[in-house]
Amino acid sequence: MNKIVLLRHGESTWNKENRFTGWTDVDLTERGLAEAKAAGQLMKDAGFAFDLAFSSVLKRAMRTLWIALDEMDRLWIPVHRSWRLNERHYGALQGLNKAETAAKYGDAQVLEWRRSYDVPPPALAFDDVRHPHFDERYAPAYSGLAGEALPPTECLKDTVARFVPYWEETIAPAVKAGRSVIVAAHGNSIRALVKYLDNISDADIVNLNIPTGIPLVYELDDDLKPIRSYYLGDQEAAQAAAAAVANQARQQ
Amino acid sequence: MNKIVLLRHGESTWNKENRFTGWTDVDLTERGLAEAKAAGQLMKDAGFAFDLAFSSVLKRAMRTLWIALDEMDRLWIPVHRSWRLNERHYGALQGLNKAETAAKYGDAQVLEWRRSYDVPPPALAFDDVRHPHFDERYAPAYSGLAGEALPPTECLKDTVARFVPYWEETIAPAVKAGRSVIVAAHGNSIRALVKYLDNISDADIVNLNIPTGIPLVYELDDDLKPIRSYYLGDQEAAQAAAAAVANQARQQ
Repeated sequence: MNKIVLLRHGESTWNKENRFTGWTDVDLTERGLAEAKAAGQLMKDAGFAFDLAFSSVLKRAMRTLWIALDEMDRLWIPVHRSWRLNERHYGALQGLNKAETAAKYGDAQVLEWRRSYDVPPPALAFDDVRHPHFDERYAPAYSGLAGEALPPTECLKDTVARFVPYWEETIAPAVKAGRSVIVAAHGNSIRALVKYLDNISDADIVNLNIPTGIPLVYELDDDLKPIRSYYLGDQEAAQAAAAAVANQARQQ
Repeated sequence: MNKIVLLRHGESTWNKENRFTGWTDVDLTERGLAEAKAAGQLMKDAGFAFDLAFSSVLKRAMRTLWIALDEMDRLWIPVHRSWRLNERHYGALQGLNKAETAAKYGDAQVLEWRRSYDVPPPALAFDDVRHPHFDERYAPAYSGLAGEALPPTECLKDTVARFVPYWEETIAPAVKAGRSVIVAAHGNSIRALVKYLDNISDADIVNLNIPTGIPLVYELDDDLKPIRSYYLGDQEAAQAAAAAVANQARQQ
């Protein structure tokens, strides 16, 4: 039996400000730092001893992973970082407040952008300073993609399409080889992986919410089909945190 | 012209307690944390933009690197960790106070163990809990070495012998390929590399001291022969810090 942990980063400054973050490289809040530490303690207490880690190239996920591994005294394990684990790119919405966006476009449009499977938000222009080709971490040497091949926006379907190949080619072989793996990522990239692992329909994935900073354990069979999955720690707290995520886009 | 930075970790708890540390995985002191941050600021101000990092598997070096890269907003660059960058293994002296050890064995013996090129301190027994084969980070999958092949003690010659191949096979090709590299390591592993790069004699290397937390820049030609090397920041402070290292083994 294989066991992996998926960990969404702790609360970020823009989670707190309720802004669309996407690939914006915002940091953790004090609460987010505490969530990361608590996650490390939970995983340690549950007996996890990871020997391989994956994360996005965004600092809220990298720092969450660092703090959790520090708590587990396993800073020394190899960490592989890829943009393919990044949060969904939110296009031209990046930086906008969710409630303001809802007030401007209406709840229905925002909910469609946030939760439809295949409708991306408005794209960033190629010369917009927020476009990923201006950021060195997405240079071809790292991302494998050049210029206009980098996403200027994404729907969840796009996130699935760029994360699943990384799972299949890089993470899954390591899990099958018996490595003990943790994946530090984001609300939508974890949702993308969960959709794939649990074979969730395009319609149902809309209703799945991943809370920040709570380790999500997947027990997988030899073919990496899920046997069961569960959050570590207080189950009611995990459910409440997931419900809170669902409410973020409503008008305030 | 190629430019690399060698960075010895900031002050550790055992630097402060003046104990032989070697591969013992002690952490940074508050001062060490501040040194790491200052090093990051110095490198940032000097215009360094690393795109590849190497460190030992000891947390004082890993944390120094993390803090410095955080300061430079470059946490996202790939980091490769190897035991081959570790501090010299101090064998059975690990954990002993330097002044006490000098009082017991005499300054001359301790100075020989510390600074002779080819006389290792007494070896750890294979069943000593401090022997590296008990530590998962040195398992064959990571270290490439099994059980008794792991060093139970090292002289500086041994440290050179295990670091230089890693330089030649892994770090040097990256530098030649134009990558901007930082190496986060330890007093003796940096001394080992400096000996190799500058072709310093076995006798003279004894007198070279590497201060904690001060970036050491090497400018290298196309064949990676040094053009010049210098510490970033206040030169007098760097010299004073190096001199302080030299005095640590004297009786107090």
